[in-house]
Amino acid sequence: MKIQVVKNILDANDRMASDLRDLFDKKKIYVINLMSSPGAGKTSLVERTILALRDRYRIAVIEGDIQDTFDADRVAALGIPAVQINTGGACHMDANMIREALPSVNLDAIDFLIVENVGNLVCPAEFRIGENAKIMILSTPEGADKPAKYPLMFQESAAMIINKTDLLPYVDFDLVKAKTAALGLNRNLSIFEVSCKTGEGLDVWVQWLTDKIDAFRK
Amino acid sequence: MKIQVVKNILDANDRMASDLRDLFDKKKIYVINLMSSPGAGKTSLVERTILALRDRYRIAVIEGDIQDTFDADRVAALGIPAVQINTGGACHMDANMIREALPSVNLDAIDFLIVENVGNLVCPAEFRIGENAKIMILSTPEGADKPAKYPLMFQESAAMIINKTDLLPYVDFDLVKAKTAALGLNRNLSIFEVSCKTGEGLDVWVQWLTDKIDAFRK
Repeated sequence: MKIQVVKNILDANDRMASDLRDLFDKKKIYVINLMSSPGAGKTSLVERTILALRDRYRIAVIEGDIQDTFDADRVAALGIPAVQINTGGACHMDANMIREALPSVNLDAIDFLIVENVGNLVCPAEFRIGENAKIMILSTPEGADKPAKYPLMFQESAAMIINKTDLLPYVDFDLVKAKTAALGLNRNLSIFEVSCKTGEGLDVWVQWLTDKIDAFRK
Repeated sequence: MKIQVVKNILDANDRMASDLRDLFDKKKIYVINLMSSPGAGKTSLVERTILALRDRYRIAVIEGDIQDTFDADRVAALGIPAVQINTGGACHMDANMIREALPSVNLDAIDFLIVENVGNLVCPAEFRIGENAKIMILSTPEGADKPAKYPLMFQESAAMIINKTDLLPYVDFDLVKAKTAALGLNRNLSIFEVSCKTGEGLDVWVQWLTDKIDAFRK
């Protein structure tokens, strides 16, 4: 019976996510759903991506946090509209939260919407929110065993960004093992190695993203 | 209505956790519930703690993972009985999972039970499992803003172990800010600074834990 409750929640979420996807299609807005463990570098990647693309696209950000507005403040400091969703304890964002945030977003004035999810490598992967692509970050201090331990996130994502490569000399992170395991779960996964701290590798990620957005919008 | 379902689940869990606590009291078993983000170092801390205390106490470990048995294998390699719970997608352990694992643990032959939860800084904090103390790990690469962003975990825990202090020279982690924020949420929180990689600081944690176990068992 508990399982049935969960299944009904997920079904209802999927229907609402499809409606959101239709709306974003109509408005030609490319949407990414950015997910990772706490502290893997989601907001830093959002900042780097905005700096690289804000002259090319009109961008908005929806920030999901259990409480506080630190991340939205960081985005707003870059001159980008940022809407903060506080989930009030919930460990993930769902389609209904996005729908309720939309009146605060001018959908006729943006090309690209970044949704930064709650820091959690488990639950967010289960909830579609009308995105074109789920993007996940794995940071090097977390270890190369994470694909095997949290497989759904890797299976659901279009791209995995391996962040904090600047720490590789100081942590026991087997890059080949991590990539092999992730590709074993999802052979279509695009993988990028970056340091949001130094900027290394971000150009490849930005080019991939630009290609996706342009292909969607043409 | 959804909220009511969640509340009923938590109430039922609390009742079952109380029953487990009574059982552990009767058997004089001290139980910790170890929680953190993925990759913060739970299993490494379990290994270090076992090595420090296995001559003093009879220890068993229950490992919670979504799937796989890597962590249980690491514990078993130290000669300690390890029971693996696979949550099958669930993002946290609950009291019922512990109850179902108990037939695999010889409660008359242990003094100290370590439960290693699923890697998640959000959901596990909501579910009691009959523990004496919740222990959390915050690793330095995650950043000092985590208490503000994931407050419940810090409020619920008896101790916070700041792990990966060996990485302090290479990450932007403000130790004072992290400790101040955590104590602001929970002024009774005991805080330890350790490196499970180098062993630094672990003696203070082990002494605190020993004092707790001895006080409980005498």
